[in-house]
Amino acid sequence: MTSITPQPVDWDVLASELAGIELITEPTQIAKLSLDYYHFSTVLQAKLSDKRGDLVVRPLNEAEVLRVAAACVKHKVPLTVRGAGTGNYGQCIPLNGGVILDTTRMSAIRWIKPGLACVEPGVKLAAFDKQARATGWEMRMAPSTYRTATIGGFIAGGSGGIGSITYGQLRDRGNLHAVRVVTLEDKPRVIGLRGDDVQKVNHAYGTNGIITELEIPLGPAYAWAELIVTFDDFMTAARFGQALGNADGLMKKLISIHAWPIPSYFLALKNYLPDGKHCALLMIAESCLEPFQDLVREYGGQVTYQKTAQEASRGTSLAEFTWNHTTLHARCIDPTLTYLQTFFFTLDRVEKMYHHFGDEVMMHLEFLRSNGQAMPAALQIVRYTTEERLNEIIRYHEEQGASIANPHTYILEDGGMKTVNVEQLKFKEMVDPYGLLNPGKMRAWLERAKSTIA
Amino acid sequence: MTSITPQPVDWDVLASELAGIELITEPTQIAKLSLDYYHFSTVLQAKLSDKRGDLVVRPLNEAEVLRVAAACVKHKVPLTVRGAGTGNYGQCIPLNGGVILDTTRMSAIRWIKPGLACVEPGVKLAAFDKQARATGWEMRMAPSTYRTATIGGFIAGGSGGIGSITYGQLRDRGNLHAVRVVTLEDKPRVIGLRGDDVQKVNHAYGTNGIITELEIPLGPAYAWAELIVTFDDFMTAARFGQALGNADGLMKKLISIHAWPIPSYFLALKNYLPDGKHCALLMIAESCLEPFQDLVREYGGQVTYQKTAQEASRGTSLAEFTWNHTTLHARCIDPTLTYLQTFFFTLDRVEKMYHHFGDEVMMHLEFLRSNGQAMPAALQIVRYTTEERLNEIIRYHEEQGASIANPHTYILEDGGMKTVNVEQLKFKEMVDPYGLLNPGKMRAWLERAKSTIA
Repeated sequence: MTSITPQPVDWDVLASELAGIELITEPTQIAKLSLDYYHFSTVLQAKLSDKRGDLVVRPLNEAEVLRVAAACVKHKVPLTVRGAGTGNYGQCIPLNGGVILDTTRMSAIRWIKPGLACVEPGVKLAAFDKQARATGWEMRMAPSTYRTATIGGFIAGGSGGIGSITYGQLRDRGNLHAVRVVTLEDKPRVIGLRGDDVQKVNHAYGTNGIITELEIPLGPAYAWAELIVTFDDFMTAARFGQALGNADGLMKKLISIHAWPIPSYFLALKNYLPDGKHCALLMIAESCLEPFQDLVREYGGQVTYQKTAQEASRGTSLAEFTWNHTTLHARCIDPTLTYLQTFFFTLDRVEKMYHHFGDEVMMHLEFLRSNGQAMPAALQIVRYTTEERLNEIIRYHEEQGASIANPHTYILEDGGMKTVNVEQLKFKEMVDPYGLLNPGKMRAWLERAKSTIA
Repeated sequence: MTSITPQPVDWDVLASELAGIELITEPTQIAKLSLDYYHFSTVLQAKLSDKRGDLVVRPLNEAEVLRVAAACVKHKVPLTVRGAGTGNYGQCIPLNGGVILDTTRMSAIRWIKPGLACVEPGVKLAAFDKQARATGWEMRMAPSTYRTATIGGFIAGGSGGIGSITYGQLRDRGNLHAVRVVTLEDKPRVIGLRGDDVQKVNHAYGTNGIITELEIPLGPAYAWAELIVTFDDFMTAARFGQALGNADGLMKKLISIHAWPIPSYFLALKNYLPDGKHCALLMIAESCLEPFQDLVREYGGQVTYQKTAQEASRGTSLAEFTWNHTTLHARCIDPTLTYLQTFFFTLDRVEKMYHHFGDEVMMHLEFLRSNGQAMPAALQIVRYTTEERLNEIIRYHEEQGASIANPHTYILEDGGMKTVNVEQLKFKEMVDPYGLLNPGKMRAWLERAKSTIA
C-alpha cells in the first residue's frame, strides 16, 4: 500500500487548490462521511472501524469533479467516491485515507423520456422515482435503502433489489445505458461509455473513474399494492414465492420470503405476523390482485395485510423490511446477528440448507430473475459465533452447490464477482494509472501492482 | 351425433321467434359465415369443407343472446358461436348445422382502467387496442390476425401470440380475469365467472356457454420498434432468439425466427431478406434499442430493417408475417404447404429436428414464456405429401420429446389440451345439458354421451 502515498501530503495546499469547492475538514463530520453500513458484518467491523478520510469534497458539477481529480493526481492522494453511504461491504470506506468525494450535491435530473432517464449520480432514488412516476415510469429496481440511497452509489456499489424479480440485476444488459466518468490521469478528462462498455465501471466501487452522469432505463409505473401473506410451513411459502415468480400473468415487484423467527424482528408489523408463521412480503400490481388471490388460495396462504399503492405511499413501505433491511431490523433486536448472500438456484437446495442449519442460519429468500428465470436468492440471517464458523457455513453452502456472494469482505472480486474482470482491469490501467481511486478494493489491481513491484 | 338433433327443425318458426334480432338466411352468406381458416390444414379441408350452418343470428346484446339461446334449446338446435372466423382448427365450424351466432355486433368497450378492461366479445382486437393505448395501456397479447380477429374469438379459440414472450399464454393465471356466459339450459341464464373459474370457458371453442362479456388484463403500452435481423446460420438465429427471450433488461413483444427458405415467402419484405439468410422478426421497446444492438453484435446478426413504432403503425406490421401469418404467406406462394405447432422446450431438440427433417419441415420458431421461462415454440411449415407422412412426422417429434399441438384436428383435446378437463366437462353438463353448443368438438362430452347411451 505504501507505494500509493509515498509523500506526506500538505492538506492545506491541496485544500487551497480546491478553493470554491465545498470542503469538509471538521473531524467528526469526516468520520461520519467515512462510514457506510459495513457494521452489519462483524468481520468487516473489525477491519474497517478505524478507517478515515482526510478531507471531504462536495463538488457541485463535473467541472468541479475534474478539479478535484487533478488535485488528487498532482498530490498522488487516494480518492474515494461516496453517495449516501448505504452500502454494506465497506464499498466507500477509504482504506488509505485521502479525499472523500461526496456526490450528493450533484443531484440534477437532466431528462426523463419514456423508458429512459439521464441523471447526475447524487440524486436520491426516491426523489428521482417520484419525478419519473409523474411521467408514467419508474425505476426498474431499487435497494431497500431507496429513501436515502443515491443512484450513483446504487450503480457503483449495488447489484439489484426491489424490481429484480422482473428486470433482473443491474449487471444485466439493458439495465444501465450509459455513464460519464472523470479519469485520474495526469490530465483528467471525461469519458463517455455506452452499451456494453458501461460494464467497465458498473459495480466497480468507484475504482474505475468518478461517475458524473448516468442514463438508466425505466419501467412502466404500475400501482403496486403491498401485501403480507403468512404460511404454516416454510417450504410452502418458498414454493409460493417461486410460483409467483414464474407466474407470467401476474405483475410483481417484490417477493420476499421469511422463515420464522425472522418475522419476529419486524416489530412495526407484528399485528400482521402471527407467532410461528412464515411470511411473504409482496408488491403486486393492483390490477393483478384478483388472480393473485387464487394463487394464495392454491398454496394455503393467509393474507394478513393489504394496502393499496395509495395507502402504502403514505406509511412505511413493506420494501423497508426486505433485502438488507431485513438484516437491519434483526440487528436492531439482536446486534450479534449477521448475514449471508446466497444464490441457491433451486428450491431443493433451499430446503436442504433450511433443515441443515435450522435456527443458526435463518432463511430469508429474495426472488429475482437471472438470465430469464425466477430464482431464489437469499440474505439469510446468521447467528454469529466466530469468523471460523461463519467460513464453515459458507464452505458448506458452496460444497452443496450454492453460490455465496460473501458480504464479509470489501474486496470487489471476493463479493459477488468471483472472477477478475480483465476489461475492468485494463480500463483502470488507463483511467487510474496511479491507483488512486478507492485503493485496496480491487484484487486484480493489487495483484498486478505486486507483480509490477516485484 | 343423431342424438343431438332428433327432430326436423322448422326454421321459419325458429326465425319468427327471433323477430327483431338480425338474421342471415341467404345461403352464400351463411356459407361464408360457416368458414374459418381451417384450410391451412389439408387434413381439415377434407373433413370440414361441406359443413354449413342453417341460420346466422347477429345479436346486439346479451338480452338478444338469451333469446337465441332459449330458441335453440326449445328446438334442440345446435348453436355455434363465431367471432371473425380467423381460427385455423375449424373451432367455429358447425359440424351438425344449426344456428351460427355471430358476435361481431356486440363490440362495446365497457371500461378501460389502468391494467384492466371490460369488453364485449365482438370487439376487434385492433380497435380495442387503439383505445387502450390512448390510456397508456395495451393488450398483453394478440394473434397475428390482430387486425380482424375479435376478443371473444381469441379467448375461446386462441392460445397466445405476439406478447406471449412477456406474459405467457391466455391459459396462464391472470391473463383473463372474468367472463359472463349465457347458458343453454331450459331457462337460459347468465353466469359470471371470475378468477380461476374462467378456465371453465377459456379456450373451449364456445362449447361451454356463450361469452357475452370479458374482463381482460392490459400491459403498459411501450413504443414498439420493429426490426429484422438476419443470420448466416439458423442455429445462431435460434440462440439469439433464446438469449433475447432470457434478457430481463430488454423489453420485447415478439421474437419470431425463420429458417431459410421461409423468408423467401415474405414477398413484401424481400428487400430486407437476402437469399439464403435466416431471419428474426422482432418487436423491441424503442427505449431498449441501444443495448439490444449489443446483443445483435454478440450473435453476429445484421439489422436489415428497423422502423420506429410511429413508422410501423403506418404500414404493415412485421407481426403480420409471424405466428400463423407465416403459414398464410407460405401458402400464398405454395398452397400445398401446411404446418405444425410444436413445443420444443430446448434448443437442442430444435437443432436435432432442424437437421433431421431439412426442407421437409421448415423451422419457424416463436419464443414465448411458459411457467416463467422463455422457450422455443414453433409453427413449422411442412411440405405436405400424405396424411400418413404427416402423422409420421408428428410421431417422430413426440418420440424425441417435443410436444405437438396438432393443428390438423378440430377436437379440442387433440389440439393443445391433450387431457380431458374434468372441470370443463362438469361445467358443460350444467350449462349445456343437451349438448347443443358447438357439438362434436369436445371429446370428453362425446365419450360421456356415448357411455350414457350405452
